[in-house]
Amino acid sequence: MTHALPPIAAERYGDRLARAARAAERRGLDALLIGVGADLRYLSGYVALPLERLTMLVVPATGRPSLVVPRLEVLPAQGSAAAAAGLIDIGTWDETDDPIALVAERIGRGSSAASAAGTVGADAAHGPMRLAVSDRLWASFLLRLQRAMPDATFEPASGVLRELRMTKDPDEIERLRLAAHAADRVIASIAAGPLIGRTEADVAREIRERLVEEGHDSADFAIVGSGPNSASPHHEASERVIRAGEPLLLDIGGPMDGYGSDVTRVLWLTGGDSANGPDEEYRRLYDVLQESQAESTGAVRPGVPAQRVDEVARGIIAAGGYGPKFIHRLGHGIGLEAHEEPYLVAGNREPLNAGMAFSIEPGIYLEGRYGARIEDIVVCGPNGPDVLNQAPRDLLVVSGR
Amino acid sequence: MTHALPPIAAERYGDRLARAARAAERRGLDALLIGVGADLRYLSGYVALPLERLTMLVVPATGRPSLVVPRLEVLPAQGSAAAAAGLIDIGTWDETDDPIALVAERIGRGSSAASAAGTVGADAAHGPMRLAVSDRLWASFLLRLQRAMPDATFEPASGVLRELRMTKDPDEIERLRLAAHAADRVIASIAAGPLIGRTEADVAREIRERLVEEGHDSADFAIVGSGPNSASPHHEASERVIRAGEPLLLDIGGPMDGYGSDVTRVLWLTGGDSANGPDEEYRRLYDVLQESQAESTGAVRPGVPAQRVDEVARGIIAAGGYGPKFIHRLGHGIGLEAHEEPYLVAGNREPLNAGMAFSIEPGIYLEGRYGARIEDIVVCGPNGPDVLNQAPRDLLVVSGR
Repeated sequence: MTHALPPIAAERYGDRLARAARAAERRGLDALLIGVGADLRYLSGYVALPLERLTMLVVPATGRPSLVVPRLEVLPAQGSAAAAAGLIDIGTWDETDDPIALVAERIGRGSSAASAAGTVGADAAHGPMRLAVSDRLWASFLLRLQRAMPDATFEPASGVLRELRMTKDPDEIERLRLAAHAADRVIASIAAGPLIGRTEADVAREIRERLVEEGHDSADFAIVGSGPNSASPHHEASERVIRAGEPLLLDIGGPMDGYGSDVTRVLWLTGGDSANGPDEEYRRLYDVLQESQAESTGAVRPGVPAQRVDEVARGIIAAGGYGPKFIHRLGHGIGLEAHEEPYLVAGNREPLNAGMAFSIEPGIYLEGRYGARIEDIVVCGPNGPDVLNQAPRDLLVVSGR
Repeated sequence: MTHALPPIAAERYGDRLARAARAAERRGLDALLIGVGADLRYLSGYVALPLERLTMLVVPATGRPSLVVPRLEVLPAQGSAAAAAGLIDIGTWDETDDPIALVAERIGRGSSAASAAGTVGADAAHGPMRLAVSDRLWASFLLRLQRAMPDATFEPASGVLRELRMTKDPDEIERLRLAAHAADRVIASIAAGPLIGRTEADVAREIRERLVEEGHDSADFAIVGSGPNSASPHHEASERVIRAGEPLLLDIGGPMDGYGSDVTRVLWLTGGDSANGPDEEYRRLYDVLQESQAESTGAVRPGVPAQRVDEVARGIIAAGGYGPKFIHRLGHGIGLEAHEEPYLVAGNREPLNAGMAFSIEPGIYLEGRYGARIEDIVVCGPNGPDVLNQAPRDLLVVSGR
């Protein structure tokens, strides 16, 4: 299975770059310095490997953005949507050049005052330069930038970019939807197959293969938690052999065309013997969980604070008697990154906007015994939730043979 | 295909932690602050997802190392080799805690003088704290650490860890070898299959699937460059349809049990018609390249400066008349990271040691026309090179039908 969405149009990148520059200017920043990663892809369409060779998009508050790339990346860089459309200049460095100096020089150019003064990092008229670096830039690069521009101040670029990236445009929502459907198909296929007698790691391997077969760029995670391991939210698939008469928690996903899937479902394995069905406590726990997931999803609409959705989910689980067993936040934003803003967590008063995309994934974990979690990706629509995943949310009681 | 090496023993991690602490002390550092990634895995065996929730191993120059983890990662963290063996303490933070404060507190504890003074980041007797952060730590975390400890100085932890990580122990070499062999099998399988008429992207997808089938944790890259695209060293597999009468460059790899594979071979596709074989220039270019690759590999032995191996490769290509067409360094170290030290590049005088592992990958690129590269992973043995890849290095003239 592959999908066939047209590429995101160059105009979209032009708009994103212009909005980022305007936001930087409003914040009093001289430039954004964007390393390899989701921010770079978002602003320019350039998908670059995270390498020790510096690639950096310099977006000055005023003036043309430019992309500093190692020479052997110049062809793919030129082929990126923003560069191909002439929205950014490309500056190339050779294997024995200092790319940090090149970046500093471009920042100097972007700010005419600093350039006139012949210095970089500060100028008499405006005080120290204010620069923002992409949040995921490697510390080694930031340390080199700080050493090269000792008078400049540095802050995370998310201060500027979070607003833009949190609200997904239709191109992004469509990609998230296709990724969710692909992951749903993998869940269905795993639930239908033999599981008992296999190790968690073996099932995880199959999940990863199927995610890629379904069109994912890569299979970034495949949590397979059987029996007591289902009580560890981020369990690493182990050599434990899966048995009848226990739950199996699957939390799987990865990027597809850049945009993440992330879905969790729980199976209960009977081995074909109905005496091995879920016990009473597990049924009760699951009912509480399912209600929590449905009600909190129903609470999604523009204007509702992110933490309120978490509160709704948590209130239902607490009323069901499992309050202390829900040990993590309700959800995380998703897009070009598997986890991004907004976070559905106590303390986050950010109001939801139409276009925000996030997971809703309450869980109940009885340590040493078993646990459950149900997770969907949900987009905040203009009037309420748009739930991207379609896999059934009931406890999936299956044979597993 | 899967492999079945025993896990790396806890004693190995104890040794690495002790050596890291001693090296930090020698360098005058108060502590190493290690985020999620290869450094963390190397020191503790803990394989953690890169998350916005801070996970940080604090290795004080003197005193016990500790691992700060979000609560919902506590089970996998406890299960890591170093924690399970009691080599590190675990400190947990909850969803609404400030993990940076927890790290600062642990650093304070590690340094008894600072702790006695009741301050963190500086103490009167010893001046500002000196801290080293893992090179791949996210800038957003480093900026928060810098804000929390304004008097401390920060530097990259590679200053301490590079020596350790560059020299692979037998556990690591065995893993690199198995990964290389798995990638070789994928090359053989792709070379034997139909290629003409398919898009590069479709072949890349098959390569990724096969790498995972062969036991790779993930398929991190699959460069498929057909015809003129073979002249772009880091070409992104495109929708170009592969034809007869042109070269196809494959550069593929990813981690297996944590350790990377990385192999490049070139096929020439005839479509079954011998009139479509490689032209004279390509044969000549390939011969020069193959000699360069073989001779530079032969130059590997302890004591030889890294740049010397690059020089050998470059000299042969220059003598063949293609000097300016070899536009990148000869190779990069490989281990828990796909690219790590040592780099085989002009200017790197680092002498090779037995146990260093790196790629040897000269290339010749005639822009707009075609190119070639041959890449193996090579370990510096006590008396010469130990070449891990076994796939034939001759130009593979195949039908492609």
